[in-house]
Amino acid sequence: MRTRPLKVALLGCGVVGSEVARIMTTHADDLTARIGAPVELAGVAVRRPSKVREGIDPALITTDATALLKRGDIDVAIEVIGGIEPARTLITTAFEHGISVVSANKALLAQDGAALHAAAGQAGLDLYYEAAVAGAIPLIRPLRESLAGDKINRVMGIVNGTTNFILDKMDATGAGYQEALDEATALGYAEADPTADVEGYDAAAKAAILAGIAFHTRVHLDDVYREGMTEVSAADFASAKRMGCTIKLLAILERAADGESVTARVHPAMIPLSHPLASVREAYNAVFVEAEAAGRLMFYGPGAGGAPTASAVLGDLVAVCRNKLAEATGPGESAYTQLPVSPMGDVVTRYHISLDVADKPGVLAQVATCFAEHGVSIDTVRQQGKDGEASLVVVTHRAPDASLSGTVEALRKLDTVRGVASIMRVEGE
Amino acid sequence: MRTRPLKVALLGCGVVGSEVARIMTTHADDLTARIGAPVELAGVAVRRPSKVREGIDPALITTDATALLKRGDIDVAIEVIGGIEPARTLITTAFEHGISVVSANKALLAQDGAALHAAAGQAGLDLYYEAAVAGAIPLIRPLRESLAGDKINRVMGIVNGTTNFILDKMDATGAGYQEALDEATALGYAEADPTADVEGYDAAAKAAILAGIAFHTRVHLDDVYREGMTEVSAADFASAKRMGCTIKLLAILERAADGESVTARVHPAMIPLSHPLASVREAYNAVFVEAEAAGRLMFYGPGAGGAPTASAVLGDLVAVCRNKLAEATGPGESAYTQLPVSPMGDVVTRYHISLDVADKPGVLAQVATCFAEHGVSIDTVRQQGKDGEASLVVVTHRAPDASLSGTVEALRKLDTVRGVASIMRVEGE
Repeated sequence: MRTRPLKVALLGCGVVGSEVARIMTTHADDLTARIGAPVELAGVAVRRPSKVREGIDPALITTDATALLKRGDIDVAIEVIGGIEPARTLITTAFEHGISVVSANKALLAQDGAALHAAAGQAGLDLYYEAAVAGAIPLIRPLRESLAGDKINRVMGIVNGTTNFILDKMDATGAGYQEALDEATALGYAEADPTADVEGYDAAAKAAILAGIAFHTRVHLDDVYREGMTEVSAADFASAKRMGCTIKLLAILERAADGESVTARVHPAMIPLSHPLASVREAYNAVFVEAEAAGRLMFYGPGAGGAPTASAVLGDLVAVCRNKLAEATGPGESAYTQLPVSPMGDVVTRYHISLDVADKPGVLAQVATCFAEHGVSIDTVRQQGKDGEASLVVVTHRAPDASLSGTVEALRKLDTVRGVASIMRVEGE
Repeated sequence: MRTRPLKVALLGCGVVGSEVARIMTTHADDLTARIGAPVELAGVAVRRPSKVREGIDPALITTDATALLKRGDIDVAIEVIGGIEPARTLITTAFEHGISVVSANKALLAQDGAALHAAAGQAGLDLYYEAAVAGAIPLIRPLRESLAGDKINRVMGIVNGTTNFILDKMDATGAGYQEALDEATALGYAEADPTADVEGYDAAAKAAILAGIAFHTRVHLDDVYREGMTEVSAADFASAKRMGCTIKLLAILERAADGESVTARVHPAMIPLSHPLASVREAYNAVFVEAEAAGRLMFYGPGAGGAPTASAVLGDLVAVCRNKLAEATGPGESAYTQLPVSPMGDVVTRYHISLDVADKPGVLAQVATCFAEHGVSIDTVRQQGKDGEASLVVVTHRAPDASLSGTVEALRKLDTVRGVASIMRVEGE
């Protein structure tokens, strides 16, 4: 076994970084045995050097991350700063100085993954980022390596813990969105500004990364259709229950039936209670994968948190260090299929539409005609009337999203339709 | 990209082997792109050369596997023969001739894993076997690589589809064991001789492999405690339901509380319906992992079948070919902790004991005293009487298995105890 240690620069020392530093110290012997050489925390770049950081030698702390990467003895950099800058520049600097990178940065990977992969590839270095998607759940490596001999057709996942916690509360207690969000905030599951989670931005970044790996094609954050879950109501949950469903915020990545294009989207959807994703409770994440030969797989676990995310970072660190010792690199970006990403209008799925209508004869016929004219076939209709007003719940067969949008636009123009109360996709059947 | 193909010898061409050959042919371009070089099926060793094998060039077929390995141009051998011999000798021959191996052979790995790993290591070659445990579910790679920076404390899995199908039927329909087995046989889920499945031999082999990887220690098939599920009755399921539980055949691998030893066991057990493993239906497999930093993870999917197993084999093939091109090897055996495997008597868990007793005063006191004398603390007792006979169901707190065995032995000697109807462990709480 080599005795000269591999040197690690830790960029960022927040919730995840401090856990990484702690485990590197407390489990040093295990890491040495698994890597085949000792691994040493050689420097920790932070913004606020005055903050007390238990268990970290103050001599390691620096505010100059660039100087740390340039000093010449660093083998691997761990980037747990998050956000686009300065993370992007630092990762690029690392590659320029022969340093492989482990990152937990979903936003950066979803936006600039192609350029960063190219930089790593040119330099003959590794870029690993298991922690960027679904925290501790091994997902990137299984998709990219275990399923490397298979063809993935569909990935459907709960990849944001905050929104799953809120939706699970709404489902379990009948609470409205605001009430459930308040509870999530009070318990620390939601941030003071929950926009990135509840509007689906966080899930969309993960969707872009997963789609790229699953389909061996480049999927940019901008290619991902995104709808948040702030409009999901207690009434939607009541409707879902009547259908034997629950509601989840899903990231859905699909290969088109002809195999010639892919789609990537994030939105709330009804799924049957019998689907394995339906029983994913609280802030847990889970990703359901359908592959041609392997069939239906699911990966489940905590999607966030300091220790779980650190576990994923350290798994990558072991792999990158082993590669370094073997003078090899792991699998880089695989984008050889170059499939186009189709717009949301091309997605084919089912819909649950709730309409407020006038309670008079002929309304149903008018509404049904409207669906038929747009080529959207109706599966079931449920009518409920009271005091001259009525509600009409229509569940459709599979239809292109563009046809459904056209239908809804036309429905809104009917004088017997007072309003479209909710439109929700129905998945997982 | 290298244009000279990597040459693969396929040893065995049954259900799994023929799927491997089929996918290698139909997905050749994808495999080439993912490996970075073409991969070619260079020979297929079979027992019955006369059998028609659709899609395989008859010129590739040979009955002489040894000659195929020795002919000098093979890069990787895929062993899907199963059983100990001739698989063991062929794998050893492969290593002697500079050929890396992908195997799906759980029995061989559980019995001779250490020697095979040593042979691979000495030769500087790869031995991969994702398909040996839980079919298509990525499990070996996540445990050995994704969690390489973490400490796994517990693995609990449904790793045999046949028995899960039978138990699921019994749970859903109230059927007895024989009736459910007959249905499994009729549907092709159970073999004509189901011994390996229902007596837990198959699960025990997988348990040995998983324990070795999870704990970085050597666990031999003989170290695994094994109990089959042929004694599980409809009455046990009724009892389980009353407790909010179901019954699964589980492989359970645990690190002792002091971290100084491990245990490995396979037996039927009651688990709460709220546990993620409880909802694993039909012939699906799932493995639940508890790691120090990552927390609770679960991996779910089809545990057997030609195509799913072939998917796992081909994932390994891609990795081994990539290693070959990089002139590197993947992680080999990691057994540095050398932890002892403790006997079943040291396992600490809870128990559900059903007794047939005389329906007269003082029986409960006598039984309770018996538990107390052996240091087994009782959680709940349920008494049910009819016609001078009664049944007593005792659920204990956590106690060592040896103490429970002592208690049961003593209970059998009480004249008020007519018989011990069933003893079942209660897990997952």
